[in-house]
Amino acid sequence: MATIHNIEGVELSSASSNSRYGTRDDSVVIKLQDKAKISCKFTSNAFQAAPVIIAKKHLLNGSNKEKILLINAGNANAGNGKSGEQDALKCCKELSEFADLNTEDVLPFSTGVIGEPLSTEEHITAFKKAYSSLKPSNWRKVAKAILTTDTKIKLISKTLVKGKKSINITGFAKGSGMIRPDFATLLSFVFTDADINQSLLDKLHDEALSESFERITVDGDTSPNDSSVLVATGKSGIKLRSKSKEMKSFKKELVKLFQSLAQDIIKDAEGAKKEIVINVEKAKNRAVAREVAFTIAQSPLVKTAMHGNDANWGRILAAVGRADGISDISKVSIKLNGTPLVTRGSKDPKHNESKASKSVKSKKIVIRVILNEGKDSFTVLTSDLSEDYVLINSDYRS
Amino acid sequence: MATIHNIEGVELSSASSNSRYGTRDDSVVIKLQDKAKISCKFTSNAFQAAPVIIAKKHLLNGSNKEKILLINAGNANAGNGKSGEQDALKCCKELSEFADLNTEDVLPFSTGVIGEPLSTEEHITAFKKAYSSLKPSNWRKVAKAILTTDTKIKLISKTLVKGKKSINITGFAKGSGMIRPDFATLLSFVFTDADINQSLLDKLHDEALSESFERITVDGDTSPNDSSVLVATGKSGIKLRSKSKEMKSFKKELVKLFQSLAQDIIKDAEGAKKEIVINVEKAKNRAVAREVAFTIAQSPLVKTAMHGNDANWGRILAAVGRADGISDISKVSIKLNGTPLVTRGSKDPKHNESKASKSVKSKKIVIRVILNEGKDSFTVLTSDLSEDYVLINSDYRS
Repeated sequence: MATIHNIEGVELSSASSNSRYGTRDDSVVIKLQDKAKISCKFTSNAFQAAPVIIAKKHLLNGSNKEKILLINAGNANAGNGKSGEQDALKCCKELSEFADLNTEDVLPFSTGVIGEPLSTEEHITAFKKAYSSLKPSNWRKVAKAILTTDTKIKLISKTLVKGKKSINITGFAKGSGMIRPDFATLLSFVFTDADINQSLLDKLHDEALSESFERITVDGDTSPNDSSVLVATGKSGIKLRSKSKEMKSFKKELVKLFQSLAQDIIKDAEGAKKEIVINVEKAKNRAVAREVAFTIAQSPLVKTAMHGNDANWGRILAAVGRADGISDISKVSIKLNGTPLVTRGSKDPKHNESKASKSVKSKKIVIRVILNEGKDSFTVLTSDLSEDYVLINSDYRS
Repeated sequence: MATIHNIEGVELSSASSNSRYGTRDDSVVIKLQDKAKISCKFTSNAFQAAPVIIAKKHLLNGSNKEKILLINAGNANAGNGKSGEQDALKCCKELSEFADLNTEDVLPFSTGVIGEPLSTEEHITAFKKAYSSLKPSNWRKVAKAILTTDTKIKLISKTLVKGKKSINITGFAKGSGMIRPDFATLLSFVFTDADINQSLLDKLHDEALSESFERITVDGDTSPNDSSVLVATGKSGIKLRSKSKEMKSFKKELVKLFQSLAQDIIKDAEGAKKEIVINVEKAKNRAVAREVAFTIAQSPLVKTAMHGNDANWGRILAAVGRADGISDISKVSIKLNGTPLVTRGSKDPKHNESKASKSVKSKKIVIRVILNEGKDSFTVLTSDLSEDYVLINSDYRS
């Protein structure tokens, strides 16, 4: 098992509310020491969950003291109107009193089913229990407690050594359906002990998201709860300044960590049997590359073909052809795991069905679409579409 | 069985090429007498099938003589490069010689698998056989011969009486996957004996399409073969002039016929168990209404929920919230088969889960989304997403 580094200034724990998931832990508390910088990014959906609305307000009014993050799994607390907001606020209030903090220093996050009232009292009891058992090392416990339809925890840790000192980054995420930018995970929490000022932290966060969660899709559906949190506690004593060599290496590692979490989400996508990487290359601009990549990544016909081990380039080419910004497919080439399928807009002259069939049987599929119209490229990660996706989502609430 | 009216000036037949589908008829010939006006509309996909490319050229260079439409099912003749175009052209050429016409007076149409070479000789033999057995009454035979994954024929006929004379309209279509505007059917052929000039016919065709095939979606995938043909033979002797009372009634019936064909396609969508009507109302403009309607209609989470008899309004509201042009959901109401689910952006105060469950069990589901922002509306028809859609499309080519 990979080593998970604790982050000085961060303590965590979880407990069970004994509600939706029985005795399984579903309520997480994370405590951040004072002076930690927090960067939060939320869903672009106009339909925003109550915890998102409350967390945004609290971020504007928080103090420089300790902070608490509350996360519950199993109930999104979305679509519950004013009473949903009251429930989220009540959790914050009760925990702030319990921990002797301001209510605004508590940030709530929720994931799960939409439109059912939160078991507020039960979660408050569980949050208090978790608060009483906070530890710096509870990463696996907490990464597990936030899961819903996920089948695996997504937890990654990295260290950068600088002389005798080192910077650690540890993060976890959850999400496997209702996944599409911007951005694509329900919940992600990444912590570092580097010392970074607020505006640099926000910038780093944006950049890391645009290279990771904003490039994955399972079903094109955006959740009202999407939240990504990046925390810098500063406890390593290493100050990262803009444009420094250290910042450059840190950013590289941070982006990699975000990308790994995003990749883990795709690997564990609802019903997914395959990981599909769509590389669109030589586009006239980045917007076209992105549009083509997402059009392929969200085509049910492409996704079912990949699921059925069918190197059906006709469906890929049809998706390219209907993407906005494409008016001519005569220069397009397509390769699947290195096997040429399409050259200059039609079947590759040396097309070999048995070779193509062999390529598509792999668990990981890389589709390269070369537009030959310019220099820009874009990559999107997605999954195949299986009967299991349909079964899981026909039966989620029952 | 509904009466199907012959259209004077139109003869049709089919035969088997004994290729992909064994002895089942898969090759159709339709002969139009001279002076028939033909309006053709083709796919918006930049990836266009060889028959689409050839038909477009021939329409520019055709004479005023008799015309022949050739249709084959089982092979789309798309993505086959220049040799695909040569194959489509060869079919036209051989049949034009057989029928003593110009090559440009023959229009080819294909539907089926992409990227496999056409069994050209076999289809030419079948087309000649079909040509030799042309009859005015072969509607059912031909409507059946053009099907691929469709399970039912889509054939509709209407009559308008004007004094002692009457105008007939008869049309058929096929399509059940790779269905999305513009426009949404692989192939549709509608014939009338009304006398209509070319520019009026084209305008009528556009209007009928925008009210029908451009408002349905199965999977958001647009085919490279989409073609809609509207023919006016003029043989009824009734001249329809712009803005006349007769034109108004004719247009009404024509739109209804196109809508019925579009509805038949949704009812027979791949794997579909339900017909779903999405009405977006009181939008600030038509573009927003359309965007919201298609975002819901293409949400895999909404489609699987409907399949699973789950009145999951949270997923519908999440789709509304992520649609372009929506920035506030606090005025949104949602009703499903008349049962209020969402009022002012959150769960309806009188929400009754058992009543909602009962509503969603129906085979036909009408989702009304009332935005309360203006006066415009838009309707989209779609189907649910079932395991069978995945099974059909994981296994189409094998």
